[in-house]
Amino acid sequence: MKNDKIIINFCPTGMVPTKNMTPFVPVSPQEIIEQTHEAYDIGITIAHLHARGEDDVPTYRKNVYRDIFEGVRKHCPDLIICGSTSGRNFPEFEKRSEVIELKPDMCSLTLSSLNFVKQASVNAPDMVQRLALKMKEFGVRTELECFDLGMINYGKYLIKKGIVEGPFYWNLLFGNIAGFQANFQQMGTALSEIPDDHFVGLAGLAADQLKVNAAAIAMGYGVRVGIEDNIWWDESRSRHTSNVELVQRIHSLIAIHNKQYFSPKEFGQLGFRNNEVAKEFVSVTRL
Amino acid sequence: MKNDKIIINFCPTGMVPTKNMTPFVPVSPQEIIEQTHEAYDIGITIAHLHARGEDDVPTYRKNVYRDIFEGVRKHCPDLIICGSTSGRNFPEFEKRSEVIELKPDMCSLTLSSLNFVKQASVNAPDMVQRLALKMKEFGVRTELECFDLGMINYGKYLIKKGIVEGPFYWNLLFGNIAGFQANFQQMGTALSEIPDDHFVGLAGLAADQLKVNAAAIAMGYGVRVGIEDNIWWDESRSRHTSNVELVQRIHSLIAIHNKQYFSPKEFGQLGFRNNEVAKEFVSVTRL
Repeated sequence: MKNDKIIINFCPTGMVPTKNMTPFVPVSPQEIIEQTHEAYDIGITIAHLHARGEDDVPTYRKNVYRDIFEGVRKHCPDLIICGSTSGRNFPEFEKRSEVIELKPDMCSLTLSSLNFVKQASVNAPDMVQRLALKMKEFGVRTELECFDLGMINYGKYLIKKGIVEGPFYWNLLFGNIAGFQANFQQMGTALSEIPDDHFVGLAGLAADQLKVNAAAIAMGYGVRVGIEDNIWWDESRSRHTSNVELVQRIHSLIAIHNKQYFSPKEFGQLGFRNNEVAKEFVSVTRL
Repeated sequence: MKNDKIIINFCPTGMVPTKNMTPFVPVSPQEIIEQTHEAYDIGITIAHLHARGEDDVPTYRKNVYRDIFEGVRKHCPDLIICGSTSGRNFPEFEKRSEVIELKPDMCSLTLSSLNFVKQASVNAPDMVQRLALKMKEFGVRTELECFDLGMINYGKYLIKKGIVEGPFYWNLLFGNIAGFQANFQQMGTALSEIPDDHFVGLAGLAADQLKVNAAAIAMGYGVRVGIEDNIWWDESRSRHTSNVELVQRIHSLIAIHNKQYFSPKEFGQLGFRNNEVAKEFVSVTRL
């Protein structure tokens, strides 16, 4: 839906950026917690978090995710936390779905197989459905991740089947080499497929991040922003950027449009908060 | 490009339909040759052919494809023959690419990984590029197969890199559950990405075949038609249909629009004929 309140989905780390690529990417739990806390203080709605293990390689391990989530909740008690179930580096269901057991507010669900520039990302239909059902079982909302039109269609199919339940939040990522592109026609076609009462955030990969984010804010859609999608300050790659700087620029744009960002508390009250969280992490976050 | 001459791409068999699903699907080389010959007599431009082996299971084997191609060429000397490099049942490059060595006029190239309703179809970037380069090496034109917008973008990337060379023919398939859908907005968005001087055929899966084909003919685009994509006569599935009947209905539509179909000879003269064919099959086809 369009809204004068802009959802800011913060993606600080991802699977790909390394310290060799940019010194600003947070990889240890402590770095991820600190940068998420800084972004929270500026203003974000959701934190879309990936964990890294030894040698900063992506990991699915619950204990690493637990450290990150506990630290984030301690400093940002109402932030909507979204864990990644990406299978790019570990295809097994048991591994990909471990993070769901921590009962974050949301987990990501990539809705089909696709290619990135150098590799295939395989998310077969039964894997997608099993991940969705496990999220449902643990009271975790689904971040519906789409890189192309067909993924939107498949997401709507899962909703129709009751495999994914509302409230609904879509994350549309433009600019992957084998996905939909960051132009008005493709963005408009994609958005025309999202039901009016669903929430949506728009992401642009690499040099497309700023243009997609700015266009989204102008038109009243949410944004996803962070080093996961883009490590450079500008299209000419004049210098690396930090997560804080990227979030600050989003707020500059929101201010120009005289809009506001969606606070995590308000967004959580719409049903995106996993109420089961309180039990599991009560010692850390709520007492 | 739009054209008053309609390319008819005939797809009689595919990977999925079996004799249990429909008695009309041709599976043996003799059946495929006969039905292609019948369709040729009615009028088709290209035959997009898949081979079947023991128990009618899809096969990559060159000797089966050779039997089919030789038989088709004997009866339909100028027909543009396109072999499938689908990897749905045999992922290895050597297997998928065997058919290219027979030097048909064209071979299909699915431009990314995707999901079908029950399984993933993995076409990683290096596989796509290796298949394309082998086609180039053997003088085989590429049938650029797209199930979603991102595949069009990747096809244009391969063209820009010189990995795929012209003349260019795109095959856009609408209606897969995790691909672009058969509605005007998605079809229009897809077609807006195809350069004006490229040829294009539109396919609809299952109940979408007739509607996509009819809309394509109305607007001046090519069509892909046959049992590979659709085994039923009508949306209500009142009865199974035959390949001949499907091709005849395409000609009824072309006649209503006072258009013509693109003859294989004319299409071949535009550069879609593999001139190396003559050497390999000269004994069968040209003497």
